[in-house]
Amino acid sequence: MDLLANFASSFVSQLQSPTLAFLIGGMVLAATGSKLAIPDAVYRFIIFVLLMSIGLHGGMEIREADPTELALPALFAALIGVIAVLLGAQTLGRLPGVSKDDAYATAGLFGAVSASTLAVAMVVLEEKEIPFEAWAPALYPFMDIPALILAIVLASLAKAKQSGEKAKRVAIGEIIKDSLRSSALSALLLGLAIGFIAEPREVHEGFYDLLFRGFLSVLMLVMGMEAWARLSELRRVAHWYAAYAVIAPITHGLIGFGLGYIAHVLVGFSPGGVIILAIIAASNSDISGPPTLRAGIPGANPSSFIGASTSVGTPIAIAVCVPLFVALAEVVFGL
Amino acid sequence: MDLLANFASSFVSQLQSPTLAFLIGGMVLAATGSKLAIPDAVYRFIIFVLLMSIGLHGGMEIREADPTELALPALFAALIGVIAVLLGAQTLGRLPGVSKDDAYATAGLFGAVSASTLAVAMVVLEEKEIPFEAWAPALYPFMDIPALILAIVLASLAKAKQSGEKAKRVAIGEIIKDSLRSSALSALLLGLAIGFIAEPREVHEGFYDLLFRGFLSVLMLVMGMEAWARLSELRRVAHWYAAYAVIAPITHGLIGFGLGYIAHVLVGFSPGGVIILAIIAASNSDISGPPTLRAGIPGANPSSFIGASTSVGTPIAIAVCVPLFVALAEVVFGL
Amino acid sequence: MDLLANFASSFVSQLQSPTLAFLIGGMVLAATGSKLAIPDAVYRFIIFVLLMSIGLHGGMEIREADPTELALPALFAALIGVIAVLLGAQTLGRLPGVSKDDAYATAGLFGAVSASTLAVAMVVLEEKEIPFEAWAPALYPFMDIPALILAIVLASLAKAKQSGEKAKRVAIGEIIKDSLRSSALSALLLGLAIGFIAEPREVHEGFYDLLFRGFLSVLMLVMGMEAWARLSELRRVAHWYAAYAVIAPITHGLIGFGLGYIAHVLVGFSPGGVIILAIIAASNSDISGPPTLRAGIPGANPSSFIGASTSVGTPIAIAVCVPLFVALAEVVFGL
Repeated sequence: MDLLANFASSFVSQLQSPTLAFLIGGMVLAATGSKLAIPDAVYRFIIFVLLMSIGLHGGMEIREADPTELALPALFAALIGVIAVLLGAQTLGRLPGVSKDDAYATAGLFGAVSASTLAVAMVVLEEKEIPFEAWAPALYPFMDIPALILAIVLASLAKAKQSGEKAKRVAIGEIIKDSLRSSALSALLLGLAIGFIAEPREVHEGFYDLLFRGFLSVLMLVMGMEAWARLSELRRVAHWYAAYAVIAPITHGLIGFGLGYIAHVLVGFSPGGVIILAIIAASNSDISGPPTLRAGIPGANPSSFIGASTSVGTPIAIAVCVPLFVALAEVVFGL
Repeated sequence: MDLLANFASSFVSQLQSPTLAFLIGGMVLAATGSKLAIPDAVYRFIIFVLLMSIGLHGGMEIREADPTELALPALFAALIGVIAVLLGAQTLGRLPGVSKDDAYATAGLFGAVSASTLAVAMVVLEEKEIPFEAWAPALYPFMDIPALILAIVLASLAKAKQSGEKAKRVAIGEIIKDSLRSSALSALLLGLAIGFIAEPREVHEGFYDLLFRGFLSVLMLVMGMEAWARLSELRRVAHWYAAYAVIAPITHGLIGFGLGYIAHVLVGFSPGGVIILAIIAASNSDISGPPTLRAGIPGANPSSFIGASTSVGTPIAIAVCVPLFVALAEVVFGL
Repeated sequence: MDLLANFASSFVSQLQSPTLAFLIGGMVLAATGSKLAIPDAVYRFIIFVLLMSIGLHGGMEIREADPTELALPALFAALIGVIAVLLGAQTLGRLPGVSKDDAYATAGLFGAVSASTLAVAMVVLEEKEIPFEAWAPALYPFMDIPALILAIVLASLAKAKQSGEKAKRVAIGEIIKDSLRSSALSALLLGLAIGFIAEPREVHEGFYDLLFRGFLSVLMLVMGMEAWARLSELRRVAHWYAAYAVIAPITHGLIGFGLGYIAHVLVGFSPGGVIILAIIAASNSDISGPPTLRAGIPGANPSSFIGASTSVGTPIAIAVCVPLFVALAEVVFGL
C-alpha cells in the first residue's frame, strides 16, 4: 500500500515537468488554431543536434566501458524490438478491419525507437539525479533496426504467401542499409563514431549538450502540435489502432523493464540504465521509422500507422511511460 | 540646466549601445546593396525564442507577484492602446491625402506593441542595472490587443457610415481570437502559461535567456535591413505618414511614462517598470500587427501603414525612445 | 632528424582533432549515401555567425592595436593574393586541356580566402594555446579581394587580346563593390565595424563566440559532404585541376609562412599570427568566391574551378595545411 502511494506521488510529480508542459502546450496551440509554427529547417537541425549529442556522449563513454557490460543490454534491446513486432502482428493483426500490411507497419513503428522520447527520459533522469551508463542511450539502434527489418520482412512474406507465389527473397541487406542511411540513424552513428575516435568533449559540452534541453523543449512543442494535427487522420481509421497505441507502449516498456532488471542482476546494469531501456522500448519511431516503413511496406495506409504513432503513441510514451517507469524504478530499486 | 545636461549625456551614451549598432548596421548593409540575408526560417525561430523567453520569465514572476500590483499597470496598458488609436484617428485621419482606412490601420499599428523594441528595452535596463518587475514585459498583450481591435472596429464603423448602411456588427470575438492565434501572441502566451504552471527555470536560464541577447542582435540587423527596404515604399505615399511615424512613438511614450508614474505613486510600480511601460507604448507592432490589420482593414494600403511603421516608427522607437525614456527616468527618479 | 620527428608527431596529433573528425565524417556520410542533410537556412546562418564572430573580435582588437603593426601583415596578405593568382595563371594555365578562363577562375579561387578554414585554424590555435593577434583573422579581406579582382581582370584582358579587340576597360570598381557586397565579406566587415565602434564584448562572448566551435563542427560536416559530392564533377574534367588543388594550397601556405616570418622579424608579428597568415594563404574561397567568379568570368566551367576547390582544395587546406603549418611553426619558433 505504501509502495502504491509512493508510486502515485512520484508519477504525479513527473506530470509537472517543464518538458511535458511544452508537449501539452503544443497540443493546446494546435487545438486552438494558433498560427505559431517552428520552421522545418530549424526542426530538422534540432533533431540533428539532439542525436549528435546523444551519439557523441555515448561514443566517448563506450570507449571507456567494459564491452562485457554492454553485450547483454544490447542483446536485450534487439530482443525487445523483435518481441514488440511479433506481439503487434499477433494482436493488432488479428483484429477486424485491420489489414496485414497496416498491422506490420504499425508494429514496426512501435517496436522501433524515438529519439525525442529518449531525450526526454535523459533529461528527467538528470533532473532527478538518477545516474545511468552514458552508453545506455546508444542501445537505440540495437532495438530500432531489428524492429524495422522484421516488420518489413514479415509483410513481404505475408504478401508472397497471399498471392500464392513463392516468397521473393527479401533484400534484408537493403533494408539495413536504408535504415542506417536515414538521417536519424546517420546522425546518431556519426556522433558515436566521432565520440569514440576523437573524444570531442569540449564541443559536446560547450555546444551540443548546452543546447540539449532548450532544443528538446522546442521539439516537444512540435511533437504536441503534430500529435493534435494527426488525430483527425487517426479518427478516419479503425479504432483498434488507438487502443493498440495506448496499450503497446506500456506493454513494451514493461518487457524492457523486466529484461533490464535481469541485466541489473546479472551484469550490474544500473537502475537508470534499466529506466532508459524500458523507455526506449516504450517509445515508437516518429522521425526515421515512418519513411522507412512507407518505402518498405508500400501497401500500408500511413493514416493508420503514422496516425497511431504520432498522435497517440508518442504522447503516451512521453507523458505516461516516462513518469511510470521512473516511478516504478524508484519503488523497485528504492531510489 | 543640470537636469538637461544629465539627460543629454545619458541620451548620447545610449546611442553607442551594441544593440543599436546592429540596427544601424542593417540599414547600412541594405543601403549599400549587400547580399547578406538572414534566412527567413532562422528569423522566425529567433522571434519565437525571444517571445518565449519573455513569456517564460514573466509567467514565473507573475506566479510570485501580488495581483493588486499588477492590476493598475495592466489597466493603464490597455488605456494607452485605446488612447493611441483614438489620437491617431483624430490627427493623422484628418490630414489631406490620408484615407480613413489608412489612418485607422496606421494608428492601430502604432497603438500595438513590438516584441523587438521591448526586447531592446529589457537588455538596456539590464545593462544599466535598472531593476524592473519581471512581469512588466507581460503587459504587452494588454496594450496590443485593445489597440488592434479598436482600429479594426473603428474602420468597420466608418465604412458602414460612409456607405449609408446600418453598421454591420463587427465580430469583435473573431478579432480577439485572430490576435491571440497570431504566432507572436501565441508564443508569448504559451510562454506565460508554461512559466506560470511548470516553473521552467532551468530551460529558461540555460537556453532561452542564454540566447536572448545574441538573437536580439540578429533581429536588429534584420529590422535595420527591413527599415531601409521599406523606405522607398513610404516615399510613394503622402509625407504625413512619415511625420506621424516620428511624432506618435514619442507622444505615446510620454503618455505611457505619465501613467506609469501615476502607478509608481499609487501602487509602487518600479522606475524600471515605468520605462518598460513607456517603451511598449512608444513601440509599434512589426511582427503580429501587420497581418492582423491587413485582414481586418482590407481597404488600407500596406505601403502606408507598414511602410510608416517598419521604416520610421521602429527605428524611432529603438534608437530615440529607448534612450529617451531611460534618460528621462534617470532624471525623474534620480537613478 | 629530431626536428623531423617533432614535426611528424605534431602533424599526426593534429589529425585526431575533433574538427577534422567532422570533416571526414561528412565525407563518409556522403560516400555511404546517407540522407542526413543540414538545412540550407541553418547552414547560411552558421556562416553568418562564424564571420560575425571573427569580425566582432577583430574589430575590438584593431581598436587597441598599433596601426604600424598591422600595416606590414596586411600588405603581405594582399601580395600573397596577387602572387597566388599569377602563379596559377602561369602554371595551371599552360597545361594541356585547361582553358584560359578556367585557369584564371581556379587561380582566383585558390588565391582568395575561406572562412571555414580560417575558423578551423583559430580553434586549433586556441586548443594548442598558441596566442595570436586577435586582428590577424581580419587580414582575410586584404588577401581575398585582390585575388578575386586580379583573376577577373586578367581573364577579361586575355579575352580582349584573343578576340583582337582593344582591351575593354574592366570595371574594377564594380568588382570591388561586388566582392564587398557578397554575404561573406558583408558579414565580416559589418562585424569589424560594430566591433570597432560599439565594443560589443558581452554579445560576442555570450553568443557569437559561445556558438563558434559548435557551429564550426556543423560547417565541417557540410564541407565534407560537399567535398565528396563535387568529386564526381571533378572527375569529368582534366586531371590537372586535381593536381593543382593539391599543390597550390601547400605552395601558397609556404609563401604565406615565409612572408609572415619576415613580418615576425621586422615588426614582431607573433608566431600564431604567422600560422594564421599561412593558413589563409593556403585556403581557397568556398563561400563568397564561387558566385563572384561565376559572374566575373562567365566563360569558365564551374565543374573545374568549384570542383577543384570544394572537393580537393578545402580538404587539403583543413586536413593537411592546418596541421602542417602548426607543426612547422612549432619547429621554427620552438613553441
